[in-house]
Amino acid sequence: MPDHLPPMTALDGRGVRLAARAGRLAGHTSSLAPGFVQGNLAILPAALAGDFLRFCQLNPKPCPVLGISEPGSPRLPELGHDLDLRTDLPRYRIWRQGVLVEEPTSIGHVWRDDLVAFVLGCSFTFEHALMEDGIRLRHVEQGRNVAMWRTSIACAPAGSFAGPMVVSMRPLAPADAIRAIQITTRFPGVHGAPVHLGHPHLIGIDDLSRPDYGDAVEVGDDEIPVFWACGVTPQAVIAAAKPDFAITHAPGAMLVTDLRNSSLAVL
Amino acid sequence: MPDHLPPMTALDGRGVRLAARAGRLAGHTSSLAPGFVQGNLAILPAALAGDFLRFCQLNPKPCPVLGISEPGSPRLPELGHDLDLRTDLPRYRIWRQGVLVEEPTSIGHVWRDDLVAFVLGCSFTFEHALMEDGIRLRHVEQGRNVAMWRTSIACAPAGSFAGPMVVSMRPLAPADAIRAIQITTRFPGVHGAPVHLGHPHLIGIDDLSRPDYGDAVEVGDDEIPVFWACGVTPQAVIAAAKPDFAITHAPGAMLVTDLRNSSLAVL
Repeated sequence: MPDHLPPMTALDGRGVRLAARAGRLAGHTSSLAPGFVQGNLAILPAALAGDFLRFCQLNPKPCPVLGISEPGSPRLPELGHDLDLRTDLPRYRIWRQGVLVEEPTSIGHVWRDDLVAFVLGCSFTFEHALMEDGIRLRHVEQGRNVAMWRTSIACAPAGSFAGPMVVSMRPLAPADAIRAIQITTRFPGVHGAPVHLGHPHLIGIDDLSRPDYGDAVEVGDDEIPVFWACGVTPQAVIAAAKPDFAITHAPGAMLVTDLRNSSLAVL
Repeated sequence: MPDHLPPMTALDGRGVRLAARAGRLAGHTSSLAPGFVQGNLAILPAALAGDFLRFCQLNPKPCPVLGISEPGSPRLPELGHDLDLRTDLPRYRIWRQGVLVEEPTSIGHVWRDDLVAFVLGCSFTFEHALMEDGIRLRHVEQGRNVAMWRTSIACAPAGSFAGPMVVSMRPLAPADAIRAIQITTRFPGVHGAPVHLGHPHLIGIDDLSRPDYGDAVEVGDDEIPVFWACGVTPQAVIAAAKPDFAITHAPGAMLVTDLRNSSLAVL
């Protein structure tokens, strides 16, 4: 990054998008543009978009919809001024028949007039709210990705889109778990309240030390493992549904919007 | 009860008070006048009332104040039309130097011009809200009193009033525990959100099968024990502070008010 630019953490949402667009940012967006909403991206051919939207509507905890583009348009003006979905994320994943084939830093070369983009809420928003309240998140403090598992909780299917809910886990002291439930309840647009706590085996998780995605974190004897619905669910479902063509963000390289995190609080 | 009266459960708050006043009701008030707020009663000489009010202000989770009388007045018009604290509870407890000396059905014979009455919120209100949401409460279904413990959580002291917080425990399935936190958060005037869940030893509870007050209930392997601050705290504190004179309700024989439970919801 040229040294005449401000530190990345001091940027707003548009600043991160412009840095990605200019090729100055190809990594993850965690902790960048603090206070601005980040989103998961899923792009599908219009022929499949109706089923995917119905899947999201049926499964709002893992798939909370923040925005949907017009077919063929890479713009989402309600999420960002001058936003261009083809260039503004640091890194993408291109999927063909459910197989990851490329991880480019822009997608103009594969853009089509029939593509519909979905931006789905991301836990970065509620994690920001938790940390602002003084709740410590171990994976953040240790610089790790959050631990995630496929569960025995079945998503409601829609067309070819079906599969198990993916959850993320954060170990919390009991009083912090209670407070975290209150805080995340205020944010239904970014997964909302937890879906489970305390007994991992009840949702099909046998080993807390071996997550299916992300990095393991320790759960202390005096802590409670708390599980939230996770934005990896739609990627897992897209991989299972095997559409001819799909694009997502690369994990951690999110779309950073112009929305303030606080604007997603229902209270 | 004369058979020309409606069933007790069909009564409103005033109906229960009039039945108690007429001597037709001397037992507990659980499940009577569904939907109407019930309260804990604590009556102290005016010389101690300031310290006790400060104690309640410092400890709002165990001691949420719903009403305070004028010194010498047995009325609380904001809680009930025609309410008379000397006669309208089914049964009272009279304490001298912290010792329980009498359990009468009225207190006109010991009433004094310097007495100040405190009505404190009772978990019956949030239990009603939980059950209306479809959450099953084992102690209610089994017709038992809720299980309560003195904890290692110290109340903030005020004057001679000091002591450990008493908590009540309800075993809940994990999803119900999350929902119960959301629901009781809406009711800060009746103990509000839980103070703990999951690890009883962290708050000084060694044996879930042996409560300090009330009746034991089983906690299943797939359940979480959830702990709320309890209205027994002020009675325990009054017993420990040993004021010359005090009056409380007898456990379970609450003051039934004209307020609707829903009026105590902050959302």
